[in-house]
Amino acid sequence: MQLNCDLGESFGSWDMGLDEQVMPHIHQANIATGFHAGDPVTIHRTLQLAARHNVTVGAHPAYPDLVGFGRRSMRCSHEEIVASVLYQIAALDGMAASCGVKMRYVKPHGALYNDMMAMGTVRAAIFEAIASYHRPLIYMLQATPEQDLHRAEAAAANVEVWFEAFADRCYDDQGALLARSQPGAVHNQERMLAQVRQICSSATVTTVSGATLPMVADTLCVHGDNPAGVQAIREIRALVDAQRQV
Amino acid sequence: MQLNCDLGESFGSWDMGLDEQVMPHIHQANIATGFHAGDPVTIHRTLQLAARHNVTVGAHPAYPDLVGFGRRSMRCSHEEIVASVLYQIAALDGMAASCGVKMRYVKPHGALYNDMMAMGTVRAAIFEAIASYHRPLIYMLQATPEQDLHRAEAAAANVEVWFEAFADRCYDDQGALLARSQPGAVHNQERMLAQVRQICSSATVTTVSGATLPMVADTLCVHGDNPAGVQAIREIRALVDAQRQV
Amino acid sequence: MQLNCDLGESFGSWDMGLDEQVMPHIHQANIATGFHAGDPVTIHRTLQLAARHNVTVGAHPAYPDLVGFGRRSMRCSHEEIVASVLYQIAALDGMAASCGVKMRYVKPHGALYNDMMAMGTVRAAIFEAIASYHRPLIYMLQATPEQDLHRAEAAAANVEVWFEAFADRCYDDQGALLARSQPGAVHNQERMLAQVRQICSSATVTTVSGATLPMVADTLCVHGDNPAGVQAIREIRALVDAQRQV
Amino acid sequence: MQLNCDLGESFGSWDMGLDEQVMPHIHQANIATGFHAGDPVTIHRTLQLAARHNVTVGAHPAYPDLVGFGRRSMRCSHEEIVASVLYQIAALDGMAASCGVKMRYVKPHGALYNDMMAMGTVRAAIFEAIASYHRPLIYMLQATPEQDLHRAEAAAANVEVWFEAFADRCYDDQGALLARSQPGAVHNQERMLAQVRQICSSATVTTVSGATLPMVADTLCVHGDNPAGVQAIREIRALVDAQRQV
Repeated sequence: MQLNCDLGESFGSWDMGLDEQVMPHIHQANIATGFHAGDPVTIHRTLQLAARHNVTVGAHPAYPDLVGFGRRSMRCSHEEIVASVLYQIAALDGMAASCGVKMRYVKPHGALYNDMMAMGTVRAAIFEAIASYHRPLIYMLQATPEQDLHRAEAAAANVEVWFEAFADRCYDDQGALLARSQPGAVHNQERMLAQVRQICSSATVTTVSGATLPMVADTLCVHGDNPAGVQAIREIRALVDAQRQV
Repeated sequence: MQLNCDLGESFGSWDMGLDEQVMPHIHQANIATGFHAGDPVTIHRTLQLAARHNVTVGAHPAYPDLVGFGRRSMRCSHEEIVASVLYQIAALDGMAASCGVKMRYVKPHGALYNDMMAMGTVRAAIFEAIASYHRPLIYMLQATPEQDLHRAEAAAANVEVWFEAFADRCYDDQGALLARSQPGAVHNQERMLAQVRQICSSATVTTVSGATLPMVADTLCVHGDNPAGVQAIREIRALVDAQRQV
Repeated sequence: MQLNCDLGESFGSWDMGLDEQVMPHIHQANIATGFHAGDPVTIHRTLQLAARHNVTVGAHPAYPDLVGFGRRSMRCSHEEIVASVLYQIAALDGMAASCGVKMRYVKPHGALYNDMMAMGTVRAAIFEAIASYHRPLIYMLQATPEQDLHRAEAAAANVEVWFEAFADRCYDDQGALLARSQPGAVHNQERMLAQVRQICSSATVTTVSGATLPMVADTLCVHGDNPAGVQAIREIRALVDAQRQV
Repeated sequence: MQLNCDLGESFGSWDMGLDEQVMPHIHQANIATGFHAGDPVTIHRTLQLAARHNVTVGAHPAYPDLVGFGRRSMRCSHEEIVASVLYQIAALDGMAASCGVKMRYVKPHGALYNDMMAMGTVRAAIFEAIASYHRPLIYMLQATPEQDLHRAEAAAANVEVWFEAFADRCYDDQGALLARSQPGAVHNQERMLAQVRQICSSATVTTVSGATLPMVADTLCVHGDNPAGVQAIREIRALVDAQRQV
């Protein structure tokens, strides 16, 4: 089990995230590529930080919406999504290679992530972008009950996929994340660690109603934008490392 | 002698340049990389067009200034220039490779070009960006009387350089382009073809005062943003091809 | 009956529209406010042109999407729409007053226009922006069968409204514009002039199926981005002026 | 003596400044207008905060450079500066009036401020923007030994001016701010309060070499981007209020 985290989300004079504190504890850094966050200097510094900590790097492309931080769904055409994902992948990949880091995967950000999980048309555009890239990259999606469909799409597109689960978010009985507005949507530390343990050991989660759902994940999404988050990441990492030794 | 031309300078709904008419007649396409012009869709289409015509592709990075079309000098730091040139090079390179085209060189645009010709500090940042790129790229500069200095800088940075001359611009006695505000700054067709012939055959130009200056160039910059420009490119190409056969 | 046209849609070095040719023939200029098109210099020049031709000016606010020309729906919050419409209205209003022109109305652009016609929540945000502006402005919407609802909303918000019809677009039996992908969606010149005559004289249109629908409009939207469009505007203007004299 | 502070410098999801803590203690809020910082929602909220605390509002226009936070000099044309300052003034003015606040002045930001202090051509463009605005606004400049020249320019342009001094910055013998890279460039608390006292009581400052220079200022620039800055503002305010009662 790997830990992935969104990093490099500063922009110009505006800082965001505790990247220096988070980087030593994760396996995979999803690095913002300039469309929702992450100017070239920020990207460069984040890649150098990843290099120092030997962290695997992925592109974190988004809709072109700085002021909305890529969180607002935009009705983009197929061609617009393909080209703008390709542009962002390429920019990060070439910079990463120049910093001695290999970019291995693509995890869309924010509204583009949500739209791709909800709409086959958006996924098709992202599959096309990744498949048309000049070297193989892995596409990271959310682990959901539609995982088999997504695997089939990936096979058809000849693209490898990784699935991620969320450490600190409560799942509903349909395998979706409980909306943040709902009580219990975000786990406290104890339940978060229990969920991580369960995903690692039995590939299942316990939903909000107490049901058990399959949760087959390659990686866990963690958040490091505040000191409590950083502390949670340290504990999850310790747990994951301990599980591995079992 | 090669012909290079700035292409891919449309942006979203705004068209610029007669790219489809120009591409068949040039050897090298300097493609805008999104900072002064060239959104991802435009870049993608321009690369596909270059691929169809077997044209060599170069990155055409600029200061981040869409509304000013990259024509306004910006006092950027060394780190800002290095990182933003790297970002733009990488974006175009990865997209080009994905379109089956190899990006071979970097020619800065507009104010970044003027600044690099005027300031060693700006050139140093661009040399650093190119030298730190993960594979060799050629840096295109203007052929001037300082060419030997630029060759020495290139050798020190371990970066290959190409020099360009201008087909349709009159040179002053210092080897600089006569300002567009001066009479005779832009050649008519006859003088343009004469200048091309002279550069190709004797590696010299005749300046505004009638003096003869050395002009050792690998490539000629041509402009295709209007029908007259396209016609001029056809004629220059015919002339260059004829010279080659001599 | 008035004629309104979108103007000021150039951006930096990119030209769009034949503003100088269109301005003499229209009554109302919808001027882009910088979010989908229209940098400050373009806005300033367009206002000066409007002043010379004594044309009424309206703000043409949009989603913040330059590369998409404001044509892509963005899921913005209520507060985001209110504040960004206010910002755009204010920018144009103060510049217009400084050019000796009074800005009288607000006509949203592109996807914001489509979204406001489709969603009461988007309209509510725009009504709030206009109602909260420090002086009265008129809100321009499309004339549709829901006109009475929109009038009621306007009364509740204490905002005056104008309704526009389209000169050259064919309506379907529900009073919506026939999609551009459908045959007959855009009228030829003869049918366009017939539709204008019918709207002016009987406040109805003939739909694609031959049915007659009410079409109570204060203004007609015309397009001047090419020479044929400019010629159509001249003819519509002549017709409208002639109708007025009847 | 008034206190002015740059506020509203957040952008989208990125926070900057402790505006809520600063606003109660200042007289004049220089509000970012969207070109270097300050999206419409941020502007709107900042204006509402100013309204609650009865703080005078000024526009804080900048070069169009979000990623550089308006700190990089850009070689803009006269027309570009005039139009872009007008646009920013107008946007803030109309929003302010809609929040029940009167915008009274204009203080350029960052590199535009530095350029206007160094170059008469940049000042001329800003004077023209302010003079052409449809109602009188006051132009805030730095108090320097060239103050008389600036007053003469203001009289010629028929624009009122205010001059600002810096509370916490050490002046050199030419009346310029000592570069931040120099030792002693930024005063500790004791020297800062002494400088404020001296400016208020005798309209002079003591320079780095111990000389005394005239410093005739209408307002003091203070900084509130960290808790120490907020505390300093409180103390300066108490001092200024006490001086006033003398």
